[in-house]
Amino acid sequence: MLIHKKKIRVEWGDCDPAGIVYYPRYFAYFDNCTAALFEAAGLPKHEMLKTYRIVGIPMVDTHARFLAPSQFGDDVIVESSISKWGRSSFDVQHKLFKGDILAVECLETRVWAVRSRSDAEKIEGQPIPDEVMAKFRSSV
Amino acid sequence: MLIHKKKIRVEWGDCDPAGIVYYPRYFAYFDNCTAALFEAAGLPKHEMLKTYRIVGIPMVDTHARFLAPSQFGDDVIVESSISKWGRSSFDVQHKLFKGDILAVECLETRVWAVRSRSDAEKIEGQPIPDEVMAKFRSSV
Amino acid sequence: MLIHKKKIRVEWGDCDPAGIVYYPRYFAYFDNCTAALFEAAGLPKHEMLKTYRIVGIPMVDTHARFLAPSQFGDDVIVESSISKWGRSSFDVQHKLFKGDILAVECLETRVWAVRSRSDAEKIEGQPIPDEVMAKFRSSV
Amino acid sequence: MLIHKKKIRVEWGDCDPAGIVYYPRYFAYFDNCTAALFEAAGLPKHEMLKTYRIVGIPMVDTHARFLAPSQFGDDVIVESSISKWGRSSFDVQHKLFKGDILAVECLETRVWAVRSRSDAEKIEGQPIPDEVMAKFRSSV
Repeated sequence: MLIHKKKIRVEWGDCDPAGIVYYPRYFAYFDNCTAALFEAAGLPKHEMLKTYRIVGIPMVDTHARFLAPSQFGDDVIVESSISKWGRSSFDVQHKLFKGDILAVECLETRVWAVRSRSDAEKIEGQPIPDEVMAKFRSSV
Repeated sequence: MLIHKKKIRVEWGDCDPAGIVYYPRYFAYFDNCTAALFEAAGLPKHEMLKTYRIVGIPMVDTHARFLAPSQFGDDVIVESSISKWGRSSFDVQHKLFKGDILAVECLETRVWAVRSRSDAEKIEGQPIPDEVMAKFRSSV
Repeated sequence: MLIHKKKIRVEWGDCDPAGIVYYPRYFAYFDNCTAALFEAAGLPKHEMLKTYRIVGIPMVDTHARFLAPSQFGDDVIVESSISKWGRSSFDVQHKLFKGDILAVECLETRVWAVRSRSDAEKIEGQPIPDEVMAKFRSSV
Repeated sequence: MLIHKKKIRVEWGDCDPAGIVYYPRYFAYFDNCTAALFEAAGLPKHEMLKTYRIVGIPMVDTHARFLAPSQFGDDVIVESSISKWGRSSFDVQHKLFKGDILAVECLETRVWAVRSRSDAEKIEGQPIPDEVMAKFRSSV
């Protein structure tokens, strides 16, 4: 299993008047971490979108637990991995560490998505190419 | 049970290159909706922080399901309510509707938080005042 | 000259650890205000993009002066107007008021932009349709 | 003159439906670059706030010119430097390069700010310590 580690500096603009990370910003961190995980597997998202003609890998379900706050100036490490491959969806797990402390834990379910052929305004799932999953196995 | 409805215009900057809401922005919507719910109960958050000397009502757990995408220019309605009062934490439920369609569903657990007396860098839970819960009952 | 007024609530997530609006958020406010100005002229941006086949009205130059800070919970009013129509570009002026106080002043130059026919990755200016400018005159 | 270079990956969430950076995000980039510039001079912002008991270095004036768009997946380089020291304010210049192309140019005027002694809700300028300016000279 490929685990990607990404270091993130908590910036001034990520924090709220309480001086801690404004929680929607954690989801932006995690979205960036999922992109970085694919890049670590040899699939930079901006190239992947073109290669496989997908519109993205939109979120269908996410669950986060915030165990300890992070503050402006903290350097945190996020460990990200694919925890499950489905047919047209997959799960990503993120663990955000502040030093040795697990500060945030997040699970995502995303879908391999294309524009609908019958309605360009709609987005629908499509089977994930074997090649994509194979890249994650060979990157470990 | 007080249910607050908030209309939100999906703005250009809320959307990603796929033309749909960038999902971390939904959490910003929901955070604003929780503030609006308290305001509807007679507790504008910026006054509540001063009245009760809390540092905020930070998130400890949130789970969202994205059932249908929203696009730039959509007007969505979010229905928000307190689904559970605990001793020092409480649950908020949000349902985001796009017309008749339930597009996003979200559950939050937040804590009634003060700065720790022993360590000003720390934040800790405190019992929610009865008065606060009473306001929600009398606002229905 | 059509002047559109938009009321904005300063939300928790708009503010930084100093408790005041994180200045990049003002630009998101102003971007929303420009969209609202066009909508007031009968040109909702999401429809305008389709009607005139433009990719957007991207910013080419913006200058803001921050005269007084705004805080979480403030309700501010932004007055927006087109200050100049060029051939393929136009200027927008925003004045953000906190009560009677002019708190932020901003000037924007935006371009009426289409995808380049020779290179779909490029964006280029195009003459603004007379019809568009006429809508602003007739809306006053 | 200390010039700090910061590499920034344009993330999915930084981009709008036109597929290019949503311009308010550039200001978040530049705010992070100003913090990185101070850190390069030996003054990490989160420590500087405590050492000099300032509330921040809020923006009073900023002017940006957007010369070329950046897209999702681009790696850009921002060169930042202090272009002028005033008594209680200072100017920062940012140049964002996409390869060899100068894509965005930005000028900032910021103030060395403390909470007012007479009114804790107010923020006011204070002379910049010589020590702070000296650090920039000795870091070149």
